[in-house]
Amino acid sequence: MSLVQISNYFLLFFLLIISCTTTTFTHSKSTLKPEEPCKHIVLYYHDILFNGTDLSNATSAQITNASTLGSNFGMMVIFDDPMTKDGHLHSPPAAKAQGFYFYDRKNAYNAWFAYTLIFNSTEYKGTLNVMGADPLPEKTRDLSVVGGTGDFFMTRGIVTFRTEEIQGDFYFRVRMDIKLYECY
Amino acid sequence: MSLVQISNYFLLFFLLIISCTTTTFTHSKSTLKPEEPCKHIVLYYHDILFNGTDLSNATSAQITNASTLGSNFGMMVIFDDPMTKDGHLHSPPAAKAQGFYFYDRKNAYNAWFAYTLIFNSTEYKGTLNVMGADPLPEKTRDLSVVGGTGDFFMTRGIVTFRTEEIQGDFYFRVRMDIKLYECY
Amino acid sequence: MSLVQISNYFLLFFLLIISCTTTTFTHSKSTLKPEEPCKHIVLYYHDILFNGTDLSNATSAQITNASTLGSNFGMMVIFDDPMTKDGHLHSPPAAKAQGFYFYDRKNAYNAWFAYTLIFNSTEYKGTLNVMGADPLPEKTRDLSVVGGTGDFFMTRGIVTFRTEEIQGDFYFRVRMDIKLYECY
Repeated sequence: MSLVQISNYFLLFFLLIISCTTTTFTHSKSTLKPEEPCKHIVLYYHDILFNGTDLSNATSAQITNASTLGSNFGMMVIFDDPMTKDGHLHSPPAAKAQGFYFYDRKNAYNAWFAYTLIFNSTEYKGTLNVMGADPLPEKTRDLSVVGGTGDFFMTRGIVTFRTEEIQGDFYFRVRMDIKLYECY
Repeated sequence: MSLVQISNYFLLFFLLIISCTTTTFTHSKSTLKPEEPCKHIVLYYHDILFNGTDLSNATSAQITNASTLGSNFGMMVIFDDPMTKDGHLHSPPAAKAQGFYFYDRKNAYNAWFAYTLIFNSTEYKGTLNVMGADPLPEKTRDLSVVGGTGDFFMTRGIVTFRTEEIQGDFYFRVRMDIKLYECY
Repeated sequence: MSLVQISNYFLLFFLLIISCTTTTFTHSKSTLKPEEPCKHIVLYYHDILFNGTDLSNATSAQITNASTLGSNFGMMVIFDDPMTKDGHLHSPPAAKAQGFYFYDRKNAYNAWFAYTLIFNSTEYKGTLNVMGADPLPEKTRDLSVVGGTGDFFMTRGIVTFRTEEIQGDFYFRVRMDIKLYECY
């Protein structure tokens, strides 16, 4: 073996080490980027709060009274709401949202959500579990997708809320941009 | 260096790149599979709802009234329930389940859970945090393990619910298959 | 190509396989360690429960009554609490904690929390979502950071609670050690 060959071997081995080290490093730093979800689903959430009489249309019910702190602070609502692919309440639901929200601020309307999106269509079967704050004065609010099952096995991600419409005290619609970053 | 040797070098270098790239790729796609948990624990959840008089046996309490939407919609329960290794209520508890559930559907019984499993035995010390929908008409329901502490540091996974027994309004038992896919 | 050269090639190729395999292995076992968070933030949580009259100072409100099971079992509180960098209630808040807790034990005070930490300062913008049991008799309690947004995009971790002060029924302070193990 000549000296040239030996030095070539060393070069090659050095490159090997570098490459593999880089692989490891890239990984422990990981590569999740907000603008690169592995899946992106847009759905519209429709909440029709029970007003005491509209039994057939209502999809949610208030379970605690607001305190006297103001801005509904303390009012909790449990919901079983339809999710549609467009902004129309009466479009066929692509999923259901089951969970609760409550108001938690004195001097402005501010909510907090925890819920499950349940898919049972030809497109998707499975669930996404979501929780986080919903500060209504902000134009967009980010919540966490903390887990998933079925077609969404072990996923995680972000849901971005945008309020699209509020009709009095008993109907509102939120556009939900569901961005998943861990897909298995 | 001969032409043959040079071409061999290139071949080797090419293989190196391929191998390392494959490593990275395998990773970002990751390898979690539903049928291959890194840990699998089966426990039975026993809920004894306080009926107003049975103070010594009760392990849970209703905190809000059902609305008039039907099927207990709006009823919330807080629990501190024993988890046993077999289906017997009076077996020594292997863990505690502390959290809440509520009913959230008009035309069928449908629940939603968030709770912590607390282990404090010679076998395990630590917690698992769980949330998700529990659509009772389904034979099995999957919820998310969204985090863990102690022996379950930073874990994630799936809990599969199977209702085993319902005795009137005040006792039910659920088999919980806890499958963890991220173990540290 | 001589025999020596060929055997050298094989050796090199073998090393390559070993290196890359090791990389993969290191990964699927992963490397998260409790004592090595990628970020560590210490904040103090101040809860001032509304007593019915102190509207200006109150930061939380009770929304359900305790049952007769004892130790406040069944009492739920919604909060919008300041988080400070030191133990002083009137220090400028570094974040807000919005969410709820409830008591869930008969024979001792035991709580369960789910909340969002909202940062909106020059230092951090974003949220952390937290849930878990808070068994008050323990000196330290670990809860899960199950997700994050903004500067805390997709993070996970552990929050360790230490009660620092309790003043009657209407004020308590908890030191929260926020340790993040997945930073993107």
